[in-house]
Amino acid sequence: MYHTDALQERIAHGLTAINIPGQPANLYDPVRYMLQIGGKRIRPLLTLMAADLFSIKDIDDAVPAAIAVELFHNFSLVHDDIMDNAPLRRGHRTVHEKWDQNVGILSGDNLLIMAYAQLAKCSADNLPAILHTFNTMATQVCEGQQLDMDFEEAATVSIDEYLRMIRLKTSVLLGAALKMGALLAGAEETDAQSIYSFGVDVGIAFQLQDDILDVYGDPAKFGKQRGGDILANKKTYLLLKALELADTTTRLELSNWLGNHSHPSAKIEQVTAIYDALGVRSEVETAKQVHVAQAYTALDAIRVDVTRKAPLRELARTLLNRGQ
Amino acid sequence: MYHTDALQERIAHGLTAINIPGQPANLYDPVRYMLQIGGKRIRPLLTLMAADLFSIKDIDDAVPAAIAVELFHNFSLVHDDIMDNAPLRRGHRTVHEKWDQNVGILSGDNLLIMAYAQLAKCSADNLPAILHTFNTMATQVCEGQQLDMDFEEAATVSIDEYLRMIRLKTSVLLGAALKMGALLAGAEETDAQSIYSFGVDVGIAFQLQDDILDVYGDPAKFGKQRGGDILANKKTYLLLKALELADTTTRLELSNWLGNHSHPSAKIEQVTAIYDALGVRSEVETAKQVHVAQAYTALDAIRVDVTRKAPLRELARTLLNRGQ
Repeated sequence: MYHTDALQERIAHGLTAINIPGQPANLYDPVRYMLQIGGKRIRPLLTLMAADLFSIKDIDDAVPAAIAVELFHNFSLVHDDIMDNAPLRRGHRTVHEKWDQNVGILSGDNLLIMAYAQLAKCSADNLPAILHTFNTMATQVCEGQQLDMDFEEAATVSIDEYLRMIRLKTSVLLGAALKMGALLAGAEETDAQSIYSFGVDVGIAFQLQDDILDVYGDPAKFGKQRGGDILANKKTYLLLKALELADTTTRLELSNWLGNHSHPSAKIEQVTAIYDALGVRSEVETAKQVHVAQAYTALDAIRVDVTRKAPLRELARTLLNRGQ
Repeated sequence: MYHTDALQERIAHGLTAINIPGQPANLYDPVRYMLQIGGKRIRPLLTLMAADLFSIKDIDDAVPAAIAVELFHNFSLVHDDIMDNAPLRRGHRTVHEKWDQNVGILSGDNLLIMAYAQLAKCSADNLPAILHTFNTMATQVCEGQQLDMDFEEAATVSIDEYLRMIRLKTSVLLGAALKMGALLAGAEETDAQSIYSFGVDVGIAFQLQDDILDVYGDPAKFGKQRGGDILANKKTYLLLKALELADTTTRLELSNWLGNHSHPSAKIEQVTAIYDALGVRSEVETAKQVHVAQAYTALDAIRVDVTRKAPLRELARTLLNRGQ
C-alpha cells in the first residue's frame, strides 16, 4: 500500500501536468489561480486511497479521476462564491472579486469541462460507471447548493431537510470520490456502495462538527473567527435544534437576536447562552456520532483485510477530531 | 434515409423523455422553461442527420448525443445571457431576468451536467471518442465566449481574430454535433473530420450572414430590428472591415458615431452610409462565400453516395439564405 504522502505527491504532479493554455488569459488565469491557492486536496486523496484499498494494479490509472474530483470541487467553489457573494476563499480573494463576475462564471464552467476531460482518460471499460457516478454526484451537489440558498429565504427548515441539504451539497462528493477509486480498482458493487456510504457519513459528521466548531471551537485550531454562523443567521443544526427545543419565551428571545445586527459580540454571547441552556451542543454531538458510527460500520463491511483500511480510518479520525 | 421531420420528432420525443425532477423548483423550473421556449433544434438535428448519412444501424442510438448537444447549447445560452446582460431570449425573458442571477448560474451548471448524463448513454465503445469530441468543443465554446467579451474592451480587433472568435463561440458546436453523429454511425476518421469541417464552415458563413442581415436584412424575414449591432457598437466583420478600409477622415467620422449614443436612428443611417461608401457589404459577402465553398468542398469529400448528402446540402442552403 501507498503512504498518504506518496498519493498526495501523485495528485500534486497530476495537477501540474494539466495542460492549461495561456490564452484567453481571463479564462485560464483564474483556473491556475484556484489550483495554486491550494487547499488540502482531501477529495482527490480519497479517490487514490480507495483505489489503493482495493489493490488497483497501477495507481496512476486512478489519477485522472482524482484530478477530476479536485477540478469539480474548484468549479463548485468558484460558482458558489459568486452566489454567496463571498470575498475570500482559502485566505485569498475569490475569483469574482479578483477579476469580475463574468470571469467567475466562465472560468468555473471551464473547470467543470476540464473535470470531464480528465474523466475521459479513464479506461474505456470503466468509463460508463465512472461517468454515471460522477454525473449523479454533480447533479446532487447542484441540488444541495440550491437547497442551501432556498433555506436562507425559508421561514422554517426541519432538521431532516437540513441533513438532506448537507448530504447533497458537501457529502456525496466525498462518497463519489471514494466510489470512483473503488470502481477503477475493480471493486464489487456492494463494496463500492459501502465505501460510498462511508464517505457520505464522514461528510455529514464533518459538517455537523463544523457547525459545532463555529460556536464552540478554538479559533486558533479551527482557523475561523468564532460565531460567524450566528452573525450570518445561518440555519445550522444548532440553530434549528434550538428553535425546535425552545419554549415560547426562549424562541422569542432567539428571534429577537436573529433580527439584531447592531451588537455582534452580544449577539454571539447571548445566542451561545441560549444554545447552552437548551443543551443543543450535545444534541449535535449525538447526531454527529450517529453518522460517525454509520461511517465505520460501512467501512467495516468492506470485504478487504482490516489492515488495508487503517489509512482511511486514520484520515477519518483526523478529519472528525480537528479544531478541538 | 429519414425525412428531416421524422428526425425532429425523435428529438422532440427525446427532450420530453428527459427525467427533470420537480424539486428543487428553482433548479429545475428554469431547465424546463429553456427547453419549452424552444428554438429550431438545428444542432441536435445535425447529429441525427450525420448519423443517418453514415447509415447508423439504429437512429435511436444517436438520440442521447443529439439531446446532449441541445442541452449544452441551452447551458451556454443561459450563462451567456447573464454575462451579456441580455433581457430576452427567443422572445421570452431570460432565466436570470425571470428568476435571478444565482438561479441562472446554477441551472446553467445543471444543464451542462445533464448534457454529460446524456452522453453517458452512448454505447461504451463509442464513449471515449464522443467525450473527447464533446469536451474539445465545450472548451472552445468557453474560449470563444471569453474572446467575445475581451473584444468588447479591446481597442483593436483584427479580422483574423474576429473569425477565430466566431469559429470558437458558435461554429465548432455545429461541427461537433455532426461529428458525434458520424462517430456513432462508425464513420471513418477522415469522413468524421470532413463533416466536422463542413459544420464549422457553415457556422462561420452563417455568422457572417448574421452580421450582414443586422444592417441589410429585411426585419420582417430576419425577425430582429435592423441596426442592433450598430447601436451596440458590436465589433462585427462589417465594422472591423470598415475601420480597416477607411481613410483618416472616414475613420474619424466612424469613431464619432461609435461615441454617439443619443441619436440612434441617425447613427444606424450614417454608419450604414459609411459601410455603403466603403463597400464592406460585398467584402463580407465574399468572406461568407469562401466559407460556403469550403463547407461544400468538405461535404463533397465525404465518401458516401451523393444522394445521401442531399438533406444536409438542403439544410445548409436554407440556413445560408435566410432573411433575404
